[in-house]
Amino acid sequence: MKNKLYAVGIGPGDYSHMTLEAVRVLEHCDVIVGYTVYVDLVREHFPGKEFLTTPMRREEERCRLAFEEAERGKAVAMICSGDAGVYGMAGLLLELGREYPDTEVEVIPGVTAALSGAAVLGAPLIHDFAVISLSDLLTPWELIEKRLRLAAEGDFAICIYNPSSRKRRDYLERACRILLEHRSPDTVCGLVRNIGREGQSFQVMTLGALKDTETDMFTTVFVGNSATREQGGRMVTPRGYRSERESAGRKGEC
Amino acid sequence: MKNKLYAVGIGPGDYSHMTLEAVRVLEHCDVIVGYTVYVDLVREHFPGKEFLTTPMRREEERCRLAFEEAERGKAVAMICSGDAGVYGMAGLLLELGREYPDTEVEVIPGVTAALSGAAVLGAPLIHDFAVISLSDLLTPWELIEKRLRLAAEGDFAICIYNPSSRKRRDYLERACRILLEHRSPDTVCGLVRNIGREGQSFQVMTLGALKDTETDMFTTVFVGNSATREQGGRMVTPRGYRSERESAGRKGEC
Repeated sequence: MKNKLYAVGIGPGDYSHMTLEAVRVLEHCDVIVGYTVYVDLVREHFPGKEFLTTPMRREEERCRLAFEEAERGKAVAMICSGDAGVYGMAGLLLELGREYPDTEVEVIPGVTAALSGAAVLGAPLIHDFAVISLSDLLTPWELIEKRLRLAAEGDFAICIYNPSSRKRRDYLERACRILLEHRSPDTVCGLVRNIGREGQSFQVMTLGALKDTETDMFTTVFVGNSATREQGGRMVTPRGYRSERESAGRKGEC
Repeated sequence: MKNKLYAVGIGPGDYSHMTLEAVRVLEHCDVIVGYTVYVDLVREHFPGKEFLTTPMRREEERCRLAFEEAERGKAVAMICSGDAGVYGMAGLLLELGREYPDTEVEVIPGVTAALSGAAVLGAPLIHDFAVISLSDLLTPWELIEKRLRLAAEGDFAICIYNPSSRKRRDYLERACRILLEHRSPDTVCGLVRNIGREGQSFQVMTLGALKDTETDMFTTVFVGNSATREQGGRMVTPRGYRSERESAGRKGEC
């Protein structure tokens, strides 16, 4: 039987946003590995486990640590904020898995910030959408710009991860300037800070105003499509471009 | 105090994929409203609740039913497969909410098929991605084509919802032809059938082969970006286009 290493998405932060399956897997595991901040979010709910942490950016080191524990025959979980498969560790674990053929990697999905942030704002996505990170650590900025431009041109609702950091203070402003080439400055946008954690807050604003708004690495940004509306302080995107009644009439499906 | 109506994403199907928060809300509610199939998925786990169902496509009727129950002072949950905010009922509930000012709509996020299907395949998204539905019931086909073209041009990983139905047998083939304008026929793709339910299965294949593959309304399709690889029968996308080591060297952040 192979050793097991689970890549577990724990959702936005609060224990209550984990899935039952994620809880079950963490309860089953001997060792829980993760970035210090995420381990601190779950530690109290899983007493008696061995917790191993590495600092931010040391992703490969963290993955190898997890594989080494699994190779000792322990059941190991690598926890990720949100979903393990969206800017998470599932990919790197599977890539490195080639070097650890006796260990099987299983991915346990979780609620990523595009979904948990959307729920706070109302319903900003609803329909076709694009998820784009502004971090240029592993991706050339030119490609990020290109994706923003194409997503804007396609009238996708857009969810922006990593809108800025200490080293990338003006990235969201630069992204907004690109979006404004194809989108009206009145486009309804929103942002959520500290989703599912202490200090959670949200704002709904125009794309024009978003350009001049300060964010940090704990902010997730939403840009509506051309049909998105502000309603009672929330951000609401319809499910399409035709009303249901119109569509039912057109197709005779009433 | 306002009446409460919750839009609850129940995840891909199996009870274990619900979040603790979704379970807590359904346990708290008096009435659970939904499309017949989804109600049948949760019914046994919430004994003593009142269940109300409407057939597929009767979305507005289903929402109004939920509001009417809430206006009688009952705590009501509208359940949606996956996430309530991704092709779900959160948007329509918030839109209709204008007509029911005494009822407050709260959205409880869940694991949408882009995430649960990705976990089955391995790690097909990982990085920037676009979610596109091929259903042209509420969106003109021309806009769907345009989005496919732009997403392919931007080298997004793409998750395709509603790839086909009885009335739209050749839509996935048409979509693949468009993607092939910008993407190699060797692009790594995958599909998952019946995610999180009985009969779950998956396949990894090339974009060229996907074009000629039959799918149904319970299939979710994934198209990799140019860096996506097949590895041990799974679909794996790296976190970016530079290796971490290269990036660390370049930025002096090792």
